[in-house]
Amino acid sequence: MSTDDDGKRPYQPQPAGPLSAEAREAVYHTIHTRRDVRDQFLPTPLPDDLVRRLLEAAHAAPSVGFMQPWNFILIRDPEVRQRAWEAFSSANDEAAELFSDERQALYRSLKLEGIRKAPLSICVTCDKDRAGPVVLGRTHNPKMDVYSAVCAVQNLWLAARAEGVGIGWVSIFRDEDVRDILGIPDNIEIVAWLCVGYVDQLYQEPELALKGWRQRLSLDDLIFKDGWGRKGD
Amino acid sequence: MSTDDDGKRPYQPQPAGPLSAEAREAVYHTIHTRRDVRDQFLPTPLPDDLVRRLLEAAHAAPSVGFMQPWNFILIRDPEVRQRAWEAFSSANDEAAELFSDERQALYRSLKLEGIRKAPLSICVTCDKDRAGPVVLGRTHNPKMDVYSAVCAVQNLWLAARAEGVGIGWVSIFRDEDVRDILGIPDNIEIVAWLCVGYVDQLYQEPELALKGWRQRLSLDDLIFKDGWGRKGD
Repeated sequence: MSTDDDGKRPYQPQPAGPLSAEAREAVYHTIHTRRDVRDQFLPTPLPDDLVRRLLEAAHAAPSVGFMQPWNFILIRDPEVRQRAWEAFSSANDEAAELFSDERQALYRSLKLEGIRKAPLSICVTCDKDRAGPVVLGRTHNPKMDVYSAVCAVQNLWLAARAEGVGIGWVSIFRDEDVRDILGIPDNIEIVAWLCVGYVDQLYQEPELALKGWRQRLSLDDLIFKDGWGRKGD
Repeated sequence: MSTDDDGKRPYQPQPAGPLSAEAREAVYHTIHTRRDVRDQFLPTPLPDDLVRRLLEAAHAAPSVGFMQPWNFILIRDPEVRQRAWEAFSSANDEAAELFSDERQALYRSLKLEGIRKAPLSICVTCDKDRAGPVVLGRTHNPKMDVYSAVCAVQNLWLAARAEGVGIGWVSIFRDEDVRDILGIPDNIEIVAWLCVGYVDQLYQEPELALKGWRQRLSLDDLIFKDGWGRKGD
């Protein structure tokens, strides 16, 4: 373990406490107004410094054993986005067939145009081999590396909300299609395809709730105390 | 699809844009100063309204098909936390043996006392059956439900940072031990054990970096353009 130039141990914790009331409110506002954007993207290009801030926020996510297993593939090429849209569209047709008739009509009415409309897509991946075979904190839960990459996605999503940028997470892809389109090696796990673009409006509640797909659950019903199913006092 | 009392469609998007510079700064400050806390918890109990805000932040996470698959088991009972610590401790001994001699000494020097020191632990779980067998957005990626629960963890973590509350994610458990201690049914996936408590200091960089376990990677090396391995201009 090293010391800094003054001979002090550089890893002493620094004072930290709650943020100001205004700053806390900004964080909660961001968390509660974040939405999954399916369609309302503006075509305006995103400035490089803004994209950089989003990626720095993602890179600041927690990661198991500090392995930072993520990569970020920035996709602006319209041809690549068109191929991705076709792969989505084909998978989406397969998906629609899995729902009953009434649900299927609603499913098909939910537009998802972010892949083509948003000026940027970001594919987030996970390299499970990045820190060798034995990773601190992954020894008893092999999924912790992928969870780290998901935390990076959520950091990016919240930073985007603060910037007035919408994110849509597209999960309706056959894995092999995205792998083929982006040339992703077999040992790399594909975690997320994010559509990224400015928005000037957002739904006040999740779109799937507003359009009758599924409603918000009561938080109280989801909380237990000291054991599964125990509601406590 | 319903309309509201005025006959207007209630699901029209509302105006939304970037937050103020101060609010954006608060969000970035929270993201960049968040730490995984292993040891520096204060024993001060957490007020109920604060815990509620953290859980509301978690419950505001994105979820695939709006399935909200999470539950939150709040663990304050010292006996339950002691059992969890013993389960961690046993798994941690197993984990230490997996590292080479030099790494093992460093591994063993990294204290993890949050399970007993923090006044609250929260176990976050995922119920894959919550929205039936066919879930919008999960049809082609069966892990999307667990990813949703991880997004809830990250929301909670950032809200906690804003509140001056530290979080430590303990992943060194045998799954069956936590399942047994908390009585979690076999069909429920255990996602995270979080230690939650006030902190008055945080490391300026991740503890694992400061203590020489592993250093931060260069973000530039992790970014590709339009395809895997392509650095573009």
